[in-house]
Amino acid sequence: MSDLEALKKEAAVRAVALVDSGMRVGLGTGSTAKYAIEELGRRLAGGELSGIVGVATSEASDVLARQVGVPVEPLDPRPLDIAIDGADEIDPRLNLIKGLGGALLREKLTEVQARRLVIIADHTKIVTRLGEKAPLPVEIARFGFLSTIERLRELGLGGRLRQPGAQPYLTDNGNYIFDAQLPAAFEPEEMQRQLKGTLGVVETGLFLGMAERAFVAAPDGVRELTRE
Amino acid sequence: MSDLEALKKEAAVRAVALVDSGMRVGLGTGSTAKYAIEELGRRLAGGELSGIVGVATSEASDVLARQVGVPVEPLDPRPLDIAIDGADEIDPRLNLIKGLGGALLREKLTEVQARRLVIIADHTKIVTRLGEKAPLPVEIARFGFLSTIERLRELGLGGRLRQPGAQPYLTDNGNYIFDAQLPAAFEPEEMQRQLKGTLGVVETGLFLGMAERAFVAAPDGVRELTRE
Repeated sequence: MSDLEALKKEAAVRAVALVDSGMRVGLGTGSTAKYAIEELGRRLAGGELSGIVGVATSEASDVLARQVGVPVEPLDPRPLDIAIDGADEIDPRLNLIKGLGGALLREKLTEVQARRLVIIADHTKIVTRLGEKAPLPVEIARFGFLSTIERLRELGLGGRLRQPGAQPYLTDNGNYIFDAQLPAAFEPEEMQRQLKGTLGVVETGLFLGMAERAFVAAPDGVRELTRE
Repeated sequence: MSDLEALKKEAAVRAVALVDSGMRVGLGTGSTAKYAIEELGRRLAGGELSGIVGVATSEASDVLARQVGVPVEPLDPRPLDIAIDGADEIDPRLNLIKGLGGALLREKLTEVQARRLVIIADHTKIVTRLGEKAPLPVEIARFGFLSTIERLRELGLGGRLRQPGAQPYLTDNGNYIFDAQLPAAFEPEEMQRQLKGTLGVVETGLFLGMAERAFVAAPDGVRELTRE
């Protein structure tokens, strides 16, 4: 394991330290969130935690949680005490881009119900403005997707349909993902309103005003960021 | 066939009279739109029309169009010359509620591309304000649907998940439908913005500023309405 991977794991351990027995916990998706699920399983197995219920944001995280002994339940309208997840970009206000892993809709639907959303990431995810390095994943309906992409281009977005092989990538919800290049300057809340308001758009990977803190693995250790 | 059914058929015939040879035609969904598809097939078979391409708004309309000899193609970003469809409610501005048939997303995605949207309906669909008689169908993601319904209730909407049998109704896109009771007074554009902006909402059955004219079957004959 590289030093950075070890530090990402340490970031996950620090996030999971915020979990108390009896809590309902949103389980993120992706390579960093995986460490948090494994740490939850370890603490449950070791008797440091008990009575945890996990709510998974993807089929993959559901499977992993069960494997490591974290009980999982489907999402229902009750609040979650905490959710722990990765992010693709984190700006100074702790606004996020998420969804490169393809689970943005389920992550957003789950994490909006969490009293606390805690992000774990490595330092390469820290940006000055969203869209600096990563595309913004936009989940769109399959039917008429070419027309929906035209509408997104009319809003000034470059980018392309996510298509890793012969067929476009399909989300857990049966939709496509358009990986949008954001313009150099934009107002995140207004961008979210415009995109979500666009016919054919199901949801975007902009997570605004949701994260409370982030544990960021950097070469000099794990830094803790809180919302300004 | 009752007198009103005969008049609905006449309304469909008058709408289809606006179709010229070579046009790309959006094909609606439901019991009234069916008459238009059948009339298109009849005129093609009789040689009164040629070179028509239909774009269907549902699997059911796709099947019917092929049965009656209307060639169909999938939706692509090219404009449609005209679309002909039914509606569940029509207000004085020709704003519509659609989607009791369950095809609201595909109808909207298709009909927004039509240079002309022509509605056929019977007089019971004419209302003073939208929501007077019919619920507003709202297509929502399956994942976390109970929480999405909570968010809709927080916006002041009554209503219930569409569930004709043991399982909730599933749209062609794999989503659920919440049949919302609209409040007594509301501003349609603002309602659309609020609902579409709600996490978990995929689209609503509000079709605003889209219809150009309507042929309405009434006991005294077929009336033609145009947008004010």
